[in-house]
Amino acid sequence: MGVGDVSKRILLGRKLRSAQLGETLLPKRIAFPIFASDALSSVAYAPDEIFIILSLAGISAYAFSWWVAIAVAIVMLAVVGSYRQTVHAYPSGGGDYEVATVNLGRNAGVTVAAALIVDYVLVVAVSLSSAAQYAASAISPLAEHEATVAVVLTAFLTVMNLRGVRESGTSFAAPAYLFMLGIAGMCLWGLFRDLTGSLPQAASSDLRIVEAEGYEGTITTIALVFLVARAFSSGCAALTGVEAISNGVPAFQRPKSRNAASTLALLGLVAITFMLGVVTLAREMGVKYVDPHELERLTYADGSPLPADYDQPTLIAQIARGVFDHFPPGFYFVVIVTGVILVLASNTAFNGFPVLGSILARDGFAPRALGSRGDRLAYSNGIVFLAVMAIVLIVAFDAQVTRLIQLYIVGVFVSFNLSQLGMMRHWSRLLSSEQDPSERRRMQRSRLINAVGLSLTAAVLVVVLLTKFLAGAWITILAMGTFFMLMKAIRRHYDNVAEELVADEGDRAMPTRVHAIVLVSKIHKPTLRAVAFAKASRPNVLEAIYVASDPAETNALVDEWDRRNLGVPLKLLHSPYRELVNPIVAYATEIRRANPRGVVAVYIPEYVVGRWWEQLLHNQTALRLKGRLLFTPGVMVTSVPYQLRSSQVAVEREERSHRVKAGDLRSGNVDDRR
Amino acid sequence: MGVGDVSKRILLGRKLRSAQLGETLLPKRIAFPIFASDALSSVAYAPDEIFIILSLAGISAYAFSWWVAIAVAIVMLAVVGSYRQTVHAYPSGGGDYEVATVNLGRNAGVTVAAALIVDYVLVVAVSLSSAAQYAASAISPLAEHEATVAVVLTAFLTVMNLRGVRESGTSFAAPAYLFMLGIAGMCLWGLFRDLTGSLPQAASSDLRIVEAEGYEGTITTIALVFLVARAFSSGCAALTGVEAISNGVPAFQRPKSRNAASTLALLGLVAITFMLGVVTLAREMGVKYVDPHELERLTYADGSPLPADYDQPTLIAQIARGVFDHFPPGFYFVVIVTGVILVLASNTAFNGFPVLGSILARDGFAPRALGSRGDRLAYSNGIVFLAVMAIVLIVAFDAQVTRLIQLYIVGVFVSFNLSQLGMMRHWSRLLSSEQDPSERRRMQRSRLINAVGLSLTAAVLVVVLLTKFLAGAWITILAMGTFFMLMKAIRRHYDNVAEELVADEGDRAMPTRVHAIVLVSKIHKPTLRAVAFAKASRPNVLEAIYVASDPAETNALVDEWDRRNLGVPLKLLHSPYRELVNPIVAYATEIRRANPRGVVAVYIPEYVVGRWWEQLLHNQTALRLKGRLLFTPGVMVTSVPYQLRSSQVAVEREERSHRVKAGDLRSGNVDDRR
Repeated sequence: MGVGDVSKRILLGRKLRSAQLGETLLPKRIAFPIFASDALSSVAYAPDEIFIILSLAGISAYAFSWWVAIAVAIVMLAVVGSYRQTVHAYPSGGGDYEVATVNLGRNAGVTVAAALIVDYVLVVAVSLSSAAQYAASAISPLAEHEATVAVVLTAFLTVMNLRGVRESGTSFAAPAYLFMLGIAGMCLWGLFRDLTGSLPQAASSDLRIVEAEGYEGTITTIALVFLVARAFSSGCAALTGVEAISNGVPAFQRPKSRNAASTLALLGLVAITFMLGVVTLAREMGVKYVDPHELERLTYADGSPLPADYDQPTLIAQIARGVFDHFPPGFYFVVIVTGVILVLASNTAFNGFPVLGSILARDGFAPRALGSRGDRLAYSNGIVFLAVMAIVLIVAFDAQVTRLIQLYIVGVFVSFNLSQLGMMRHWSRLLSSEQDPSERRRMQRSRLINAVGLSLTAAVLVVVLLTKFLAGAWITILAMGTFFMLMKAIRRHYDNVAEELVADEGDRAMPTRVHAIVLVSKIHKPTLRAVAFAKASRPNVLEAIYVASDPAETNALVDEWDRRNLGVPLKLLHSPYRELVNPIVAYATEIRRANPRGVVAVYIPEYVVGRWWEQLLHNQTALRLKGRLLFTPGVMVTSVPYQLRSSQVAVEREERSHRVKAGDLRSGNVDDRR
Repeated sequence: MGVGDVSKRILLGRKLRSAQLGETLLPKRIAFPIFASDALSSVAYAPDEIFIILSLAGISAYAFSWWVAIAVAIVMLAVVGSYRQTVHAYPSGGGDYEVATVNLGRNAGVTVAAALIVDYVLVVAVSLSSAAQYAASAISPLAEHEATVAVVLTAFLTVMNLRGVRESGTSFAAPAYLFMLGIAGMCLWGLFRDLTGSLPQAASSDLRIVEAEGYEGTITTIALVFLVARAFSSGCAALTGVEAISNGVPAFQRPKSRNAASTLALLGLVAITFMLGVVTLAREMGVKYVDPHELERLTYADGSPLPADYDQPTLIAQIARGVFDHFPPGFYFVVIVTGVILVLASNTAFNGFPVLGSILARDGFAPRALGSRGDRLAYSNGIVFLAVMAIVLIVAFDAQVTRLIQLYIVGVFVSFNLSQLGMMRHWSRLLSSEQDPSERRRMQRSRLINAVGLSLTAAVLVVVLLTKFLAGAWITILAMGTFFMLMKAIRRHYDNVAEELVADEGDRAMPTRVHAIVLVSKIHKPTLRAVAFAKASRPNVLEAIYVASDPAETNALVDEWDRRNLGVPLKLLHSPYRELVNPIVAYATEIRRANPRGVVAVYIPEYVVGRWWEQLLHNQTALRLKGRLLFTPGVMVTSVPYQLRSSQVAVEREERSHRVKAGDLRSGNVDDRR
């Protein structure tokens, strides 16, 4: 095992360098911004959605905005409390999928997975559509082109992620802290100015809101309740992303679970503060906000229409404009960091989606090729899939956040509910065997917290389904159902295959005889190498095969073969129509039929070239031949590659792309076993 | 060589049955319709184009139509005479490409090939656009939807050809004879009625033609000459397809060349007769015909506009309507057989294009994979390429025959010219060595015929370029230039590769040692088979490799490996990030580096499944791994397939598709050589 020893030393050395690097644990001050950006970024659009829905009944309904925000805050508290239990109980980072699978069974887990897939796509679509709105707030020529901006942002993130540039902790943390600084500063300064009576009114405060159709005049109590419920379920968009921390527990410094739990609490506190702050300031400043695609409902106080090019800034942009009315850099700072945090939030989906894919692949619910986490190509498939789906949504909904939000929250709450239900089962199961009274009390308290969380999230899910089903939630449910069926079908297929493949003793039988054939098209280096390699494997029979169609060419080749005296007989397969694949397949089949317990080894010389268009010019027939031979029982196909000079191009490209990732994907490590 | 004997007998038997079948020689009565449909079908649109161009100067210019037709007929005679020389001199069927390559060198040959590629595409686009016009003549709801009809026809032909249903001689001959019967019947009956004074005027004879802009009032002689020249060059569309017979000489019964030559003469005679007949009847019946996309230039005699839904039937349709005014079935018969012959004419391109591809591939100007003539997939690529290009043209030019014609004739005449020039060289070369006076006279006469042909076709090419360059011929020239460059680049690439691959004695060196590794992902039938096959090849070192990422899975696998006692050591490659490809490539590279004169044989167990979506779920990693290992010097990769039950689906599908073709592609034949 000389070779093994050498490789062991070299590879082990490399491993020590790289594997450690990948497992750097995150202190709370870094982990918080990394995991919080998704949840915190929703303050950029969730309050807006509350105001949009309430505006349907005119300005008087804004009176409810505070109550809606408080209701969302209460649900947020319950969800944060619930997930604090989860991070203690499941520190492995499997998240909702693991909780649901372990406690509620496979179907619940697959349902959660389907919900998560849909959510990842919507995180990208909603965050980048919202980011496009902020870009338009700061750079007015971008207005009306939000969909284009959002698609360009998606493409940009896709390329960045395909190139394998991953954000390091600090590059992620800085913008997140700047965002928190910006929003907190805006809220505090605005509140201070409000208390001192110097807070100006927003530019839109003078405008009038025309009630939407059906909401004119006095509306019934039922209609009002339904309206507030709709506003509430849109506001619940603020809760998306809370679950991120429960997937990231393994990345925390020890004590992992406790650090994760306190980070969660901090996240909840900041998110609630921001949301209430924004809603309060918006009300104090008299902001008027309607669906950006129903701007005709916004008029001057005298009822005259606004100019056609009127552009409605987002809630945060309007507040920042007023609060920093004597300090424009403050406005630009807030708008820019909000846009940046939205882009970072959608980037978490680009990181999270392939990880989900690898977990699903491990469990047989996704193509197994997605299962190698460190593999660039497996990641690439996931990234491209995510980007394409997100772009389809952005284009289909014209980057209108308000319409995308209708699709968004269903998936999140489906997975919240199943996860909470799973946690209740979890505690009940533990309680059934636990004797220690203090432990039991602790578990009972946890179960109570999860029960509260479940009742609230279940209530929200019902409200969301009732108020949003026709507005778009049905699309989400349809998509979830499709992914659910697909994953189940994949698993069923893998199970069937695995059953068919179970090995028994008979499978150990060695073939009685190896009949090797080397395919010859010309006599050149690749052919001679294939002959030499085939000889080295010492088959029982070795012959070269040439498919003859042109008599002159054939004679020339036969002469050269004889002259070179290679010690291998050349057999001709006649094919008057220049057909290559079928004669070879037929010949291999014949050999095998004559000796069913033997094996046919087909050696195919292949050129290896480096550029894609060169690939088109070579080996196409070899490829087809290999494809056909795979279906022929008792045949094994050996590619004997000959690297042309241009193949170096591809090798260097590959090496360059690896260098970027600091070698961590190259890690390998050899164990010798007997 | 027991196996060889068995296979020889079986395969030889099969060969005798099928190869004979494929080489059935055609009697003239079948060969004529097969090769003539392309050339004869142009009578369906060439006279129309003459009338369209002349109509620009108003009805008075129709006086020149007869002279234009006679000029076209003279060129036709010259071209037919020239090709009669070609079929005698080059009975191998290489056609213009061979003549140009042999006599004028490689660049001339490639130019001809580029022209032919463009022509094949245009044959499809023009013929099917014209067929769509005829369909609209017979079924009026199809009017205004010609482009859709033409695209549907292209798609139909594509599918038929992809399915491998080739027209047999008789199925092709019948419609061609019916077409000739129809046109000849129409001409004769029309002429008879004309002589007896009972020929009615065409429906359009009462209409007035408004001169096109620039042609109002008296026009200058130069403008008139240019107009007639344009009409002539459009009329030359009648000459396309004449060269088909020179490609088909090998298919004729003996004496091949003489039969082909007399068929050519017959073709010329019929084509000229039809064209003159149609033009004569159109003039006698006072047909008015303008560009179908300038119908506003056609008015009632009093100058009032035609109804908006007025639809202008083609020339042949108008004539048939009048000639058979008391016998409508006659009209429908003529229109239907004309439509059918146009479809058959474009089908010749679907047959000819892959053949051209295989010839170019043989000479290294096209991807070599196109070179296996009998191979379904090679054909498929050509068919799809042709169809896509034709559909692009049809859609881009909205199936307007008049505009497509502008692109059409350049390519044909480029190849005519190079071919005639080549023939003159051919005769001059022969004359330089020939002594026999009678032979010399014969050759001198042939050279004279080719010289006349060359001067006429050269004159036509100049006229075509002058009159059509801006109207669309520049597109053709651009396309030809592109194909020319592309083919030269491909050839250069192959030449470079061939040079790099020339074998010398050093290439015979046997590897000193074979180090085999079997990749293990699970212990199941495919793995055990791969181990058994690898053992059977008796390498110097044999080990199994498992890429370990999950400790629990790894331990379970190691335990089972030990329990099964397979006699092969298992080596673990650690990959904490579930990465598979890189550790294996790195390990193989290490082995090779430790022993540069040895070879590493990597055995990969593969599942073989039958359905495309199953393929997505399996072997993706194996595929990537093989792709990477090809670039690693000194490694050969062996696929050990394990056929799952579902793979039977694919095998049966393959067999079904072969049965259609009566087994002729399966032909193979074994020669034993020492």
